[in-house]
Amino acid sequence: MTDEPHFQWVNVHRTGSGPGLVADRVCVEEPLEIVLRYHQNGAMVSKTLAITMRTPGQDEALVWGLLFNEGILSDPKRDIDHLEFRYDCNATVRTQQTVVAHLRKGLIPDVSRVERNLITSSSCGVCGRTALDRMLDQCIYLPRTGLPLIPVNSLYSLPGKLQSVQEAFRHTGGIHGCALFDAAGNLLFQAEDVGRHNAMDKLCGIAHERLLVPVSNHVILVSGRASFELVHKACMIGCAVMAAIGAASSMAIETAEMYGMTLVGFLREDRANIYTHPERVAT
Amino acid sequence: MTDEPHFQWVNVHRTGSGPGLVADRVCVEEPLEIVLRYHQNGAMVSKTLAITMRTPGQDEALVWGLLFNEGILSDPKRDIDHLEFRYDCNATVRTQQTVVAHLRKGLIPDVSRVERNLITSSSCGVCGRTALDRMLDQCIYLPRTGLPLIPVNSLYSLPGKLQSVQEAFRHTGGIHGCALFDAAGNLLFQAEDVGRHNAMDKLCGIAHERLLVPVSNHVILVSGRASFELVHKACMIGCAVMAAIGAASSMAIETAEMYGMTLVGFLREDRANIYTHPERVAT
Repeated sequence: MTDEPHFQWVNVHRTGSGPGLVADRVCVEEPLEIVLRYHQNGAMVSKTLAITMRTPGQDEALVWGLLFNEGILSDPKRDIDHLEFRYDCNATVRTQQTVVAHLRKGLIPDVSRVERNLITSSSCGVCGRTALDRMLDQCIYLPRTGLPLIPVNSLYSLPGKLQSVQEAFRHTGGIHGCALFDAAGNLLFQAEDVGRHNAMDKLCGIAHERLLVPVSNHVILVSGRASFELVHKACMIGCAVMAAIGAASSMAIETAEMYGMTLVGFLREDRANIYTHPERVAT
Repeated sequence: MTDEPHFQWVNVHRTGSGPGLVADRVCVEEPLEIVLRYHQNGAMVSKTLAITMRTPGQDEALVWGLLFNEGILSDPKRDIDHLEFRYDCNATVRTQQTVVAHLRKGLIPDVSRVERNLITSSSCGVCGRTALDRMLDQCIYLPRTGLPLIPVNSLYSLPGKLQSVQEAFRHTGGIHGCALFDAAGNLLFQAEDVGRHNAMDKLCGIAHERLLVPVSNHVILVSGRASFELVHKACMIGCAVMAAIGAASSMAIETAEMYGMTLVGFLREDRANIYTHPERVAT
């Protein structure tokens, strides 16, 4: 099975020791549409099974494993005649990538099972969306230009503040947290969940309840990595600055850039990587 | 908004310094079905929007945030008349929990948007499944009783071996890895992805390609936490031992127990937490 690059280079504004603009590698995150194709009653049927955000590479293995693990094929080596990959390599803007699984002659997958699997979760954030622009349409509140202006030392203080209130993590070591801060670095509230998308949805729900949406003069901190879905959710409530203690994916960075959001990764008490819109951080 | 316990106590076989059976807290992971209810053409409509795995607590915030972030409601405080929670508190076996969002009079949500959101991802692993037993039905290969027998020192050596080959993580610090080892602790192959479910699907796909399924005499190591979905996917290819460098969730432990899988968490070079079926680890 083929292997492709897992990472790409981006420009990063690095604060702390050795500040300045540097090139750094980030993990690639891109959508892949998985389509089943088979013959039924003399007609060719094409069925989109899933659109998943994944890191390119080992795509063939991903399709084999997913179709088996979801109970759709009992033996992928036997049941898949061939995989047809459709990548638009010449696109200047990243476009949908598709893989069509042509099933072996005579095999009709259990579509009711497929349907049941598809009764699924908006909690995945990204799933079911094929293009960034469709998501941008969905944003009622876009981050305001310029605001807020965050002193870099205030930014550095956020992880310690989240950790001091993240009860469940302390007890279990296995939960994601996120928190909303005002521009002065005061923690307003936080949310926790095993699923990072859930923690972010909870945080957004509390912001709605407190009539704080759009949170245009605030910062969201997430305890883990910044993925595309988390950036999108933060943008939905108009947040202009999102910081992550972990890394940022390529698509998180692209999305933040497009939405006008300041995205910070690897936030520590004395340094940070600013991936997009660094003008909101006063160093 | 109400708050509920994030963790529960489980029995853990702790190896390394201070071995023995101890009680420890793990993060709770449970399914929540989210249903929209509204009037249309004089009839009451109930529509299951999502079944999501979440940590109980802040459930009201989760529903508010999710319905807004998915573009279904533009103002949850105005649009939701009330939330009706249905928990079966008396069940001895954990059962489906449901929240019904009764929308304000006259509001008909954009169902086409809901439908589009629902064209989504089996990659979520859990989504669309309402009960563990339905998933158990789906397993062609269950872990074999007894096998494999893993010396604890062999187990301790696995994280270092995964790290030594996990290229993308070294470069980006932002990717999940998982690997398949034989019972002697030899690394056979590994997979990486920004999504942990994808990394596991890739690993399973490679196992199929190499005709290793069921991997009944092997160990799977995951670089992050052990969630329900990862345990389920590992069980799908008949793996009897799964180890995680991070924590295990409550539902991961319940699932592993039911499937007959040995589940290990917080695996380090000199210690480990064994949550289920410790008889496969020779200490």
